[in-house]
Amino acid sequence: MKIVLIGSGNVAYHLAKAFHQNDVPLVQILGRNHEALEEIHAATGFPICTDWEKIENADIYIVAVKDNAIQECAQKIPNKKAWVLHTAGSVSYQEIPEGFQRGVLYPLQTFSKRKTLNYQEIPFFVETEKQEEAERVMQWASLLSSKVMYADENTRRQLHLSAVFACNFTNHLFTLAENICQQNNIPFEYLHPLIFETVDKIKTLSPKDAQTGPAIRNDMPVIEQQLNTLTGRPKEIYQLLTESIIEMYKS
Amino acid sequence: MKIVLIGSGNVAYHLAKAFHQNDVPLVQILGRNHEALEEIHAATGFPICTDWEKIENADIYIVAVKDNAIQECAQKIPNKKAWVLHTAGSVSYQEIPEGFQRGVLYPLQTFSKRKTLNYQEIPFFVETEKQEEAERVMQWASLLSSKVMYADENTRRQLHLSAVFACNFTNHLFTLAENICQQNNIPFEYLHPLIFETVDKIKTLSPKDAQTGPAIRNDMPVIEQQLNTLTGRPKEIYQLLTESIIEMYKS
Repeated sequence: MKIVLIGSGNVAYHLAKAFHQNDVPLVQILGRNHEALEEIHAATGFPICTDWEKIENADIYIVAVKDNAIQECAQKIPNKKAWVLHTAGSVSYQEIPEGFQRGVLYPLQTFSKRKTLNYQEIPFFVETEKQEEAERVMQWASLLSSKVMYADENTRRQLHLSAVFACNFTNHLFTLAENICQQNNIPFEYLHPLIFETVDKIKTLSPKDAQTGPAIRNDMPVIEQQLNTLTGRPKEIYQLLTESIIEMYKS
Repeated sequence: MKIVLIGSGNVAYHLAKAFHQNDVPLVQILGRNHEALEEIHAATGFPICTDWEKIENADIYIVAVKDNAIQECAQKIPNKKAWVLHTAGSVSYQEIPEGFQRGVLYPLQTFSKRKTLNYQEIPFFVETEKQEEAERVMQWASLLSSKVMYADENTRRQLHLSAVFACNFTNHLFTLAENICQQNNIPFEYLHPLIFETVDKIKTLSPKDAQTGPAIRNDMPVIEQQLNTLTGRPKEIYQLLTESIIEMYKS
């Protein structure tokens, strides 16, 4: 089974490392950014290439590029009998041109460079145009992860949406908290045990049951005092999230 | 050194366990809720009492009650030479009546019942009315935690504010993500590795540098598609947090 990975960004970097970690060789990693490819090569030893003319023949092409580049990249794949899988959460497999064996391999994770991950723990969601082929792709994907599941397009989009709340927005709140600390010469590290505990709780409690803080207590003196020290976006965010919490628990 | 703890809520529960874990006995835990006190007694073995008439004489009284009950509770303390410390993040020590040795012992943590914690890792912030007494209180508090620091009132309020962003609001985003999952028959557990990784990153990266997702990429097709599937508060929250991320990184 020959596999070519297309892309040189964070997702491509981590997918290449996942293949390497699981002893599944890639015949080629093809991308635009030579420097980024060199970094992937250094981490995995897999052959890299920036020249589309030299794309290798393969059975599976994994297109791990920006959403708006999926179509263009897929069009350039020469072997029309191949599997072509993109890795995007909110993009249809139809973005890949007709004729290929089309599908999706969506890893539900946040990927930053230079961060070691255990890929076996990451959920990979598979979709295939021809449902009867799904089992084959899932079996193959289980070389990468112990958590391979089927998800149709709508489920995958909803997974992506919930991930934006649980990860991207959460991380932005950490950034706003860090800003408050910096403005007051407080080391952000002081908040680490609180943050780790907040997340540790969801292992045993539903987050709905784990809620604490001034909003769920409807503690107006503290809420007003805190609002008065804020301005701009952080103030708007404080106000809106506080209202949302109060409403959720008021009944 | 005789210590009485006043309160029967989550903070009192965990403070009592912290004393117990560190072999520092409490002479009494005084509170209104008999059932909750029984639970604390079962976990620690310390004497409990609901009758203010029977309050024990002590050197230190820790008032771990709701913000708006601190004053009333402190007034009832008979030994006017005692230390009286409240545990609230956003309340002045002046809420304790004059005459006592007044101060604050603020544990920066989110406390839910039936969750085991390592209290030695929790930062405790101390403030005293008479600055020259701070060292004594901090030394005594270091029986509970290896992370005892001084924080004046403003610093403590800012710590509390940043904690609301990093913990309470973050947990609410987890709840909204869980709601999206439930509405689509997706097990919330699928998001666990993503959430654990989001938090693990802040051990090595500033959250500002760790940001990922559609907003930081200014990925309008995905942002609009996701907004279209939302209504009500979650939609407003998506919109506002997305704008805040886009603005923060646009320069």
